[in-house]
Amino acid sequence: MNLPEVTAYLHEHIPITAHLGARVESYDGTSVCLSAPLEPNLNHQLTAFGGSVSALAILSGWTLLHLRLREQGIRSRLVIQKSAVDFLEPIEGDFRAIGIMPPAEKWEKFLRTLQKFGRARISVLSRIESSAGTGGRHEGVYVAVSLREGEIV
Amino acid sequence: MNLPEVTAYLHEHIPITAHLGARVESYDGTSVCLSAPLEPNLNHQLTAFGGSVSALAILSGWTLLHLRLREQGIRSRLVIQKSAVDFLEPIEGDFRAIGIMPPAEKWEKFLRTLQKFGRARISVLSRIESSAGTGGRHEGVYVAVSLREGEIV
Repeated sequence: MNLPEVTAYLHEHIPITAHLGARVESYDGTSVCLSAPLEPNLNHQLTAFGGSVSALAILSGWTLLHLRLREQGIRSRLVIQKSAVDFLEPIEGDFRAIGIMPPAEKWEKFLRTLQKFGRARISVLSRIESSAGTGGRHEGVYVAVSLREGEIV
Repeated sequence: MNLPEVTAYLHEHIPITAHLGARVESYDGTSVCLSAPLEPNLNHQLTAFGGSVSALAILSGWTLLHLRLREQGIRSRLVIQKSAVDFLEPIEGDFRAIGIMPPAEKWEKFLRTLQKFGRARISVLSRIESSAGTGGRHEGVYVAVSLREGEIV
């Protein structure tokens, strides 16, 4: 899957992401960057609506884990369990959510737990940025559940 | 403003809320209920996308405070500072975010601080519900900033 295909996957399977204008801009195995334009995400103050920022941030962590698990050939169902956003500054332009892979030892432990118990959780941090700098921070806790043979997500 | 007018205000000023299908269902001064249909908010598992749930919850606290402040004739700019969601169960149908007014003593302190310093913060809890029961909980911390004479939100 190349990046436009990942974006198309999100738009098809999570249709609100098309209305957000969410796009996968980059992925290198250690981080992912999703972007959204300001205009469809405006609020009454003409800055980015917190709900849109939160949604893009949740999606960034999900996309990062989804791509890493696929790369490693691990088939699982991945859902968000907790989401926490600190809104640091009003966002007055297009914005990005940059999800960062957890430290290697946490990732390895997550994979071992998933293999052993068929279920594991992991936390992913994302920065929310615009041309003015960091506008917020997100922590998402995601749960992966192994798929049985033949099961489709 | 009646409830359809509040819904129209949200859709006009925060356009993504129209795509969420968010509607203000009830408001009685102590709580507000916002609804959203499942269909535009589906995820890849055919349950409600966490980002949509989070956005509706953020909006529920904002709408509750916005309406209460208007009722009391207080003109302020109101923004979210922190948002935290616990996703308890997958949501498999239309859903609601029910924002509950903080205890009276916290509200009174918020109003006194806003009047004295022109700025105050308050936390609002919301329950996320579907026909299956409570699917999640949200805590939003909102900051109000007094508007100067003649200033428009």
